[in-house]
Order: sequence, then C-alpha cells, then structure tokens
Amino acid sequence: MLLQYDRPVTSDRLASQIAFLLEADKLKAVERRTPLTDGSRAENSAEHSWHLGLAALTLSEYAGSVNVPRVLELVAVHDLVEIDAGDTFAYDAAGNVTKAERERAAAKRIFGLLPSDQAAHLHAAWEEFEASETPEAQFANALDRLQALLQNMQAGGGSWTEHSITRSQVLRRMAPVESALPDIWPFVVDVIERFRRAGAIADD
Amino acid sequence: MLLQYDRPVTSDRLASQIAFLLEADKLKAVERRTPLTDGSRAENSAEHSWHLGLAALTLSEYAGSVNVPRVLELVAVHDLVEIDAGDTFAYDAAGNVTKAERERAAAKRIFGLLPSDQAAHLHAAWEEFEASETPEAQFANALDRLQALLQNMQAGGGSWTEHSITRSQVLRRMAPVESALPDIWPFVVDVIERFRRAGAIADD
Repeated sequence: MLLQYDRPVTSDRLASQIAFLLEADKLKAVERRTPLTDGSRAENSAEHSWHLGLAALTLSEYAGSVNVPRVLELVAVHDLVEIDAGDTFAYDAAGNVTKAERERAAAKRIFGLLPSDQAAHLHAAWEEFEASETPEAQFANALDRLQALLQNMQAGGGSWTEHSITRSQVLRRMAPVESALPDIWPFVVDVIERFRRAGAIADD
Repeated sequence: MLLQYDRPVTSDRLASQIAFLLEADKLKAVERRTPLTDGSRAENSAEHSWHLGLAALTLSEYAGSVNVPRVLELVAVHDLVEIDAGDTFAYDAAGNVTKAERERAAAKRIFGLLPSDQAAHLHAAWEEFEASETPEAQFANALDRLQALLQNMQAGGGSWTEHSITRSQVLRRMAPVESALPDIWPFVVDVIERFRRAGAIADD
C-alpha cells in the first residue's frame, strides 16, 4: 500500500466512525457456505447482508406488524462479528458450541470502534438480532434462513448437496420461516421436498 | 445446475417477489473500479450497497435533517440497474453519455419483475437517488462518493492511481460531499491533497 490514512482530521468522533467503516470492509472477505445463485463462487457476508435488506423491503407484508427500518438496522449489522469470528456453518455442530462466545468478543471489539453512543446502539441491534425475540429480529432471522434456501435452490443444491445435509436438518434450520413468515412456509416445504426427491437434499 | 425452482407456489405475487430477489443476486457479479481496502480485488456493487447502508447509519448526524429509513431504501436499490447496464466508471466520459438511457431501460426491466405496487415504489426510490434533489438522495449520493474515496485511500490509491485520475477530477467527483456533508469535507480535501503530494493522485 502506497499510503494510508493515519491521523484524524476534523474530530476524534469522525475518525472513529471512519475507522469503523474501514474495518467493516473486511466483511466482504468473509465467505459463507452458500453459493451465488449461478454457483460460480461462495457468497460473502457483506453482499449477503445487502440482499437481506432488499428481501426485508420486498417481503415485509408477510411479517405482520414489523418496524421495517429497525429490521434494516438489524440486517445491516447482523454479520459484522464474522470479521473476527468467521462464518460458522449452520450445520457445524461443534463450531456452533463456541460460536456465541467468539461472536460476543468480536461484537465488543468491532462496535467498540465507534463513538460510545453509536457503539451501544448498533451493539444492541446485533444483540436483538441474535436473541430473535422481537418481531423485527424474528423477521430478519427468517429472511436469513429463507435467503440461504433461495440461493441453494437456484444453484441446484448448493451447500445442502455439498455437505449431504438431510431433509430434517433443513426443515429444522428453516423453522424461523414457519413462525415469522407462515404464508411463505408452503413454498419452503415444497422446495425442500422437491430437492429431496431429486437427491439434492439427503433422506434422513 | 441440478434443479431450479420453476413454478409458483402459494401466489403469483410471492412468485414475482422471489423472481426479483433471485435476479438481484446478479448484482454480486457486477465489478466496480474501486478496490477493497486491502487491494485484493475489485469491489462488487452488492457489497458496496451494503457498505453504503452502514455508512448511512453511521454518518447521518452530518447530513442535517434526513429520513434515514428512506436513505436506506435508496441505497439498497441504487445500483440494481447495473445488472443490465454494468458499472459505468465515474471518470469514463463516453460511457457516461449513454449511462442514463441504459440504466433507464434496466430499471424498467428489473423493478418490473416485482408486483406493480412494489415496482413503482422501488423504481421511484431509484429515480430519487438518481435525481439527487431530496436531502435523502443528496446524502446517499455523497456517501456513494465518500465510500469510494475511503476505499481508494485505504488501498493506497486504487482506481485513482490505476487510471491516472487528476486532483481536479477527484475534487469534482467528490463535490456532493461538500454540499451534503460539509463537516466531512475538510477530511476529503486533506486526503486528496496528501495523495496528490504522494503521487497517487495526478497533478492537473
């Protein structure tokens, strides 16, 4: 690198905000297990986060009464912890045991780059997403699951096929869609059954 | 591809929405001229759109009175036309002559995948961003410029150096930051001057 920005101009507050935005760029290098719809490469967590925001704008009518702007905040920050903690594959039981602790430390560091008021606000958004208790977080989590289904479906099986995931594993993973987006659930079940019949999702 | 989803379940409306979200996935394959901050590869327009949303959440205090949720909508859809029209390099004069027409046709096709009420709403959001007349659109456009500056800066020159862009070209390109985010403008000028002195931005 020729030259980097290394001293604050204007205010410490702006310098902190810029440092956070520069750090966030690293999410573009975090690979998920889900492929792009054309199967050409793995999706990264930054472009995935954008796609979830677009899905929130498109599908909010199925979520009952939700505060869509809050959903967009949750979605924008929901994967930032992966800059430190990596993307833990949904079907990796061992990885998921340590996931919460790794992500908690990551959240503290990454949101902590911001001025304290903003750090608290966005940290709380991440915690709300993780807890999945509010309607907004339940909608965002359901979209996160649905989006992976759409990508795997369009790629012809994607991570389901690559990792020999079974029908009951996918159904369990998709459960948040059933509760938060009940009108979309029949579509999800239909996809799973058709991919199972085609052998792209394993029998149990 | 093993198997694709090819028939609607539940409703035509949901099928249209899913078709739109699947089409949107292609934005992840549209390369911009701006590199990631580590210089490892070109940024794509989908991850860029996510980063702009995060910047909107982080920097709205500098934009005066703006409706941040509306900004997030503008940002989420602002580059979708590039799926058909490609990313036109900011400093490509010839490309920018035909840009508006190519993008208009793209908007009609891509937003037209949605149910008509949603197509109209998101098409209007794209037009608002393009017109850059409302405070929300001016903030979003300023972030779009600022984000490119941050990425080029952190990558040590990026597309400025690669394409021998001059100081006055960069200043002109960054002008929306001066009007929409005046408190951030001294930082922008400082970066430009330091990169010019270092030879990473050309003299005029």
